[in-house]
Amino acid sequence: MSKPRVVIALGGNALQKDGEVTADAQKTVAKNIGEIIAKLSSKYEIIIAHGNGPQVGNILIHEENAGTKSAPAMPLETAVAMSQGQIGYWLAQAIDNAFARNHQHKKVISVVTQVVVDRNDPAFRRPTKPIGEFYSAKEAIKLTKTRGWEMREDAGRGYRRVVPSPKPIDIVERREIISLVQSGTIVIAVGGGGIPVVRTKVMKVLKGVDAVIDKDLAAAKLAELIKADILVSVTAVPHAYLNYGKPNQIALGILTPKEAAEYIAAGHFAAGSMLPKIEAVSQFAGKKRIGIITSPDRLELALQRRAGTIIQDI
Amino acid sequence: MSKPRVVIALGGNALQKDGEVTADAQKTVAKNIGEIIAKLSSKYEIIIAHGNGPQVGNILIHEENAGTKSAPAMPLETAVAMSQGQIGYWLAQAIDNAFARNHQHKKVISVVTQVVVDRNDPAFRRPTKPIGEFYSAKEAIKLTKTRGWEMREDAGRGYRRVVPSPKPIDIVERREIISLVQSGTIVIAVGGGGIPVVRTKVMKVLKGVDAVIDKDLAAAKLAELIKADILVSVTAVPHAYLNYGKPNQIALGILTPKEAAEYIAAGHFAAGSMLPKIEAVSQFAGKKRIGIITSPDRLELALQRRAGTIIQDI
Repeated sequence: MSKPRVVIALGGNALQKDGEVTADAQKTVAKNIGEIIAKLSSKYEIIIAHGNGPQVGNILIHEENAGTKSAPAMPLETAVAMSQGQIGYWLAQAIDNAFARNHQHKKVISVVTQVVVDRNDPAFRRPTKPIGEFYSAKEAIKLTKTRGWEMREDAGRGYRRVVPSPKPIDIVERREIISLVQSGTIVIAVGGGGIPVVRTKVMKVLKGVDAVIDKDLAAAKLAELIKADILVSVTAVPHAYLNYGKPNQIALGILTPKEAAEYIAAGHFAAGSMLPKIEAVSQFAGKKRIGIITSPDRLELALQRRAGTIIQDI
Repeated sequence: MSKPRVVIALGGNALQKDGEVTADAQKTVAKNIGEIIAKLSSKYEIIIAHGNGPQVGNILIHEENAGTKSAPAMPLETAVAMSQGQIGYWLAQAIDNAFARNHQHKKVISVVTQVVVDRNDPAFRRPTKPIGEFYSAKEAIKLTKTRGWEMREDAGRGYRRVVPSPKPIDIVERREIISLVQSGTIVIAVGGGGIPVVRTKVMKVLKGVDAVIDKDLAAAKLAELIKADILVSVTAVPHAYLNYGKPNQIALGILTPKEAAEYIAAGHFAAGSMLPKIEAVSQFAGKKRIGIITSPDRLELALQRRAGTIIQDI
């Protein structure tokens, strides 16, 4: 019997601990993730999708603050590609090293991934995702004039650029990722939700756009396209919860996509936090497809349906 | 009969024209390369290795000039990984789009690649490769103290950091690259010569090191490991030359590795320019393996041995 195919979505902040964001600190955190993934790979085909929030934020801060005419700042879509190289390298090396410590070798690779969005996605008319540096009101006005950026005041900390967060509709490299998985390779893909691209109307060529794709939705799209059996959104907490953080908090165990939809509609999950995760995994879940939300330490048990929040149509 | 397997090494400055280094300008140049590669892919299995000199230079300038405690500058090895994401994205998209304009689809992907070097390589005791920003003499002294950087005066333009340029001895992702090529995928790999890593003595785990690997030597190592038939170093000129730039300049046509070695020994080729290219391709060339040096516009003819400098043991 072939191994179950599992897409694991890791948060970009899963690589950061105690506010330590140097390359060395992030590699140290990646080491632990590498051990977990290496262990799981004996029982599962694994594809890792990862976030890039804090990493691409720092890349943009460097690019914008030090960009000059002779060394121009790279646009957001290229910065996402850069973050895929960066985080993909750290994760691949961490997994390689976990195998090496066990005197094993298994194929693992990070691939640069473009994710197609719809140019008519309503998100393009309503940018919501804050990125990069904080600016003063005066600078914000100037940036809107000179760069066409939409700027928004961010919780009293200053003004930040906001960009659209359109839905993923296709993954350019899906066939290549399937080839790799079929050859027994652990694949790291759709980093940061993928490099956002649109297809032009007439020639159908790809063109990068300045946007940010939610990494859980991109992971769900990937899981669907590569016919995965399981999609896991790995986060800081072991479950999704009703009444999160309140005295009557309830950890969700096994539930159906329909039940998840009802809890979503009832407003149980925080936007920008648990909401996109539970939306993504329940959208993927079905009769034969399992959606899971859990923390790294529970991942192995959750894949056996013995921990975490498990969404499946029973 | 299977298609000949060709590794094509592109210079990082092959993406830059007339000093234009914005993302848009580099994508425009990549478009032309994409057309050439797409056309060749009907007759050849293609693996692209690319340089990253100017691109990683700009990344380092941004990282160093705008690095802060909360958004720290990434080290050189991680910057190489970032440049692989950046350039790999541009090239993969350009090739994808060349197929789309011809209403075709073919698999193409960029992979993050680590290249192993020997920690005892003499290059580590004698750093030679200048990278990143120019600094004043005073700043240079400070950087040596605070960061341990070796600094060197660079042709009257200021001081720059110099890093080792060790020889590639293995490619971590060679098996994954072979799987992709065998599945009919055009692969973009070992960008910037690869992310330089060493293997630790006891545990054999990988560890990034601040160094720069020559992209032609990395391409030659890749060509050897994946059993390529042809290695091409694509450069600005259509041939390697004897007495280059002098009245008695002679374009080299077809020659043996032994002849190439004699010309190398006679000092015909400029260090840091034609020398690493001809060393790399003639090191690869043999009875059944062809090494080529040519310009992008001659690539197709050169693969038919009708243009360029062709090195083969006849």
